[in-house]
Amino acid sequence: MEIRVYYEDTDAAGMVYHAAYLRFAERARTELMRRCGGDHPSLLAEHGVLLTVRRCAIDYLRPARLDDLLRVHTIVTGVRAASFDMGQQFICKGETLATMDLQIACVSRQGRPTRLPVSAERRANGSGLGRIVAITEE
Amino acid sequence: MEIRVYYEDTDAAGMVYHAAYLRFAERARTELMRRCGGDHPSLLAEHGVLLTVRRCAIDYLRPARLDDLLRVHTIVTGVRAASFDMGQQFICKGETLATMDLQIACVSRQGRPTRLPVSAERRANGSGLGRIVAITEE
Amino acid sequence: MEIRVYYEDTDAAGMVYHAAYLRFAERARTELMRRCGGDHPSLLAEHGVLLTVRRCAIDYLRPARLDDLLRVHTIVTGVRAASFDMGQQFICKGETLATMDLQIACVSRQGRPTRLPVSAERRANGSGLGRIVAITEE
Amino acid sequence: MEIRVYYEDTDAAGMVYHAAYLRFAERARTELMRRCGGDHPSLLAEHGVLLTVRRCAIDYLRPARLDDLLRVHTIVTGVRAASFDMGQQFICKGETLATMDLQIACVSRQGRPTRLPVSAERRANGSGLGRIVAITEE
Repeated sequence: MEIRVYYEDTDAAGMVYHAAYLRFAERARTELMRRCGGDHPSLLAEHGVLLTVRRCAIDYLRPARLDDLLRVHTIVTGVRAASFDMGQQFICKGETLATMDLQIACVSRQGRPTRLPVSAERRANGSGLGRIVAITEE
Repeated sequence: MEIRVYYEDTDAAGMVYHAAYLRFAERARTELMRRCGGDHPSLLAEHGVLLTVRRCAIDYLRPARLDDLLRVHTIVTGVRAASFDMGQQFICKGETLATMDLQIACVSRQGRPTRLPVSAERRANGSGLGRIVAITEE
Repeated sequence: MEIRVYYEDTDAAGMVYHAAYLRFAERARTELMRRCGGDHPSLLAEHGVLLTVRRCAIDYLRPARLDDLLRVHTIVTGVRAASFDMGQQFICKGETLATMDLQIACVSRQGRPTRLPVSAERRANGSGLGRIVAITEE
Repeated sequence: MEIRVYYEDTDAAGMVYHAAYLRFAERARTELMRRCGGDHPSLLAEHGVLLTVRRCAIDYLRPARLDDLLRVHTIVTGVRAASFDMGQQFICKGETLATMDLQIACVSRQGRPTRLPVSAERRANGSGLGRIVAITEE
């Protein structure tokens, strides 16, 4: 997914504010999910679950600046019953600006850990989270 | 209410990002409501209503910068059955940086215009929105 | 310009946070400028000027929600020596969610009002701000 | 440092948006620096340096919600020539909501790693970064 840097994303140091990468990363994860046939409102309506960030570690290597066009790569690196791991990478003009490792948990509306609605879909070779696990997006 | 400007509030032009004033203004309105004995979760739990911005006009006069300490003045300028008007002013070192006029509407969870839970409280000379209408905060 | 609503744009009332529209609007203005051959870093590097929001009035008509796809229409409604006016409209599924009127000022790095780098370009029938004035984007 | 959760910090899942903790954490680090006699504008004006987040790892344990009052604890856990490590903890009603480990780097305006302006101040038993290293804030 490509993400353009706007004024809203920058700070007075002239760079992209460090918390903005977490917003960018979530956009990329959401679009990856959409490409796999899923989206957040459906997850909640059909399965009664939310995906929530349980852990996030980010390394900032080089700053991004106003008007830069970032490319976000997103991969699934592991899957458990109620959570999965992802890696994300922010690239601009051939250089890696930041890398991110996340653990995403599946929770109920009340915040209780809940099985990923994966297996059924996987069995069906279908859409949604099952396919996220199977693909890598550039 | 005093608000400190942090990096998160600034942009690459070295100034406070224009949308940040709307966030600041809402903090001040929320704290004004709290001083009057109300808060958003209670409004929803007890009265089933939300306060939502229906209209907002803001004039930016002078920029605020990193680490500035802003003072937000908030007054109620008019009250109707299901909405009220407010004026807010952002001041730093004796200078007005921005002024804001808002119309705030009271809506149900479904977004339907709803009477302000004001009159009863007003009769009781009580807390909550009734008192907001009666006071001015500096 | 199309803008997708992500979790970052929503709030606990389940709607798009009111200040987010100002961020969306600026993305649309920036992309309009880009389509006309200009961008913020070039404006600063080549002309020594910034475009800054001097006034903004927004009417919120209907809420946007998570995962909605908004369409932002942007037009120039007036031009003066050192500022210009714009109108922006947020549309989703055929309904207008919000409308916005802005005054954008051209300022120097020090924040002083500065003539728009328009006329020369206009004479040249050229790129940049001159063309923004001439076009309407849907 | 105490931080109140406003609508701006929440998302449509009814919780504090995960990236908001990075903003909260920076406020707390900035106020810690201020209590030690330093601030970002002075660091840049007097020493020509910026503090920038080089690495950040955050564990989200329990969600925060609208109107919660968070307490942020910040400690320095290690110091090197051009960077230092910090730990931050978010607490609400006696429960830890999130913990964060950061590496903060000292860089020049151009983004080059630069020695912390610590030692001199430390020798002088003085203000600024030297004292940050020496204290723990609750």
